[in-house]
Amino acid sequence: MFNHETTKRVRYGETDQMGYLYYGNYPLYYEIARTEMIRSLGMSYKEMEQSYRIMMPVMSLNIRYVRPALYDELLTLKTSIRKLPKQFITFHTEIFNEKNKLVNGGAVKLCFIDIKSNTTIRTPEFLVQKLKPYFENS
Amino acid sequence: MFNHETTKRVRYGETDQMGYLYYGNYPLYYEIARTEMIRSLGMSYKEMEQSYRIMMPVMSLNIRYVRPALYDELLTLKTSIRKLPKQFITFHTEIFNEKNKLVNGGAVKLCFIDIKSNTTIRTPEFLVQKLKPYFENS
Amino acid sequence: MFNHETTKRVRYGETDQMGYLYYGNYPLYYEIARTEMIRSLGMSYKEMEQSYRIMMPVMSLNIRYVRPALYDELLTLKTSIRKLPKQFITFHTEIFNEKNKLVNGGAVKLCFIDIKSNTTIRTPEFLVQKLKPYFENS
Amino acid sequence: MFNHETTKRVRYGETDQMGYLYYGNYPLYYEIARTEMIRSLGMSYKEMEQSYRIMMPVMSLNIRYVRPALYDELLTLKTSIRKLPKQFITFHTEIFNEKNKLVNGGAVKLCFIDIKSNTTIRTPEFLVQKLKPYFENS
Repeated sequence: MFNHETTKRVRYGETDQMGYLYYGNYPLYYEIARTEMIRSLGMSYKEMEQSYRIMMPVMSLNIRYVRPALYDELLTLKTSIRKLPKQFITFHTEIFNEKNKLVNGGAVKLCFIDIKSNTTIRTPEFLVQKLKPYFENS
Repeated sequence: MFNHETTKRVRYGETDQMGYLYYGNYPLYYEIARTEMIRSLGMSYKEMEQSYRIMMPVMSLNIRYVRPALYDELLTLKTSIRKLPKQFITFHTEIFNEKNKLVNGGAVKLCFIDIKSNTTIRTPEFLVQKLKPYFENS
Repeated sequence: MFNHETTKRVRYGETDQMGYLYYGNYPLYYEIARTEMIRSLGMSYKEMEQSYRIMMPVMSLNIRYVRPALYDELLTLKTSIRKLPKQFITFHTEIFNEKNKLVNGGAVKLCFIDIKSNTTIRTPEFLVQKLKPYFENS
Repeated sequence: MFNHETTKRVRYGETDQMGYLYYGNYPLYYEIARTEMIRSLGMSYKEMEQSYRIMMPVMSLNIRYVRPALYDELLTLKTSIRKLPKQFITFHTEIFNEKNKLVNGGAVKLCFIDIKSNTTIRTPEFLVQKLKPYFENS
């Protein structure tokens, strides 16, 4: 299993008139979570698109909203990849508030597209190699 | 079953650098779909909050992304309530592009909160009464 | 002078915890205003990018916020082009609420970029021709 | 003069199909800039709303777009208050990319509203006191 943690503060423009982080803003939080997770591997999603010409469209998104996140809270985004990706890659993210209470949890499943041929490909080898150590029997 | 249909055009600010409607903008589309569905019943969500003092936070969101929606496309949002709501209400939305191809489908489950007491309540009776005719005599 | 009018409803996700349309969401409203204005000329901004390979980045944005717009209000966006564009084009938009009170007014100035050469160009002739009738002495 | 600096990375969901940070997302960047500036004074905007019951709606926004910001760039937001606020407060922000080139510059003018009475007030004394040291002995 590969784990990563980052933080993000709730901005005014992200709240709604209930005073909550709008439910539709969580996907951006999840994007931040997985982007920073990939960066922690020593590569970047930008590089994947620009150098490797691979893009990763989202196939599915599932979110459970447990309790509201409030304006100005510094949220902790804990993300894991639970199995070595093959055809698809799934990121599981849980978001905690400053009191360490679960705000929100969800999973995003993405595929890999080769931009030149515009076809779906398996998880690229350079990414598998980076992830493999986290999934070996210790 | 209660069905409703509305349209929404993809705006520039909603696309991303893949040229697609960003995956995180769909929840706003779903909000539009269910708000206009409620309006078609002769009431409004605004009224529910202001006059009835009931708010409806989202409990879960599940989205499947089938094909990308592109800039300036006029999307059709087809929404249904498949069973008379009791404790929760679930809206199922499918989004179609101008060629009538499925772009995206998902479900949003919401609960009802009495604002004054800040407690969860069952589907308010005035809403049940509006919906009931659509679920009678099968 | 060339005038155009369209409407846009304030969505929940666009409000903030003051209960107002967030100040940072107005630029999207202005985008809608000018896109629909261009469409009313019998062309589309999408076509300009795809067929004519011209894009229009924003050079400046000036907004005065007069009174708040509230959730679910159906706003009227009145836009004008006050002089025949040459090097740049400026759209002036005023937004009115349901009581016909001014909510917000602003101007967006854009230039024209030829995508192939990535250079700034003057207002393309096909657009000048569409606009000219509105600026002739009647 | 009071100066402050913070950073913000451009997210995928904030780009548009030109591959640029969408022009309408800068106001959120400016919000981040001024919120973090206020926090650097040892207070928070959240506290102002909750404890002091003062809110600060935006009165005007002026932005010049100099060059595009691109996906994944870590932008530096430099903000200054150029004179001790009286009736209004104006934040000037300049945004620089990783090559230290100016991306964007603008000013946001806000007023102060006493929430209880819903009336405009002058800059609250606790804020003036915090800012005063930066505007003394020229």
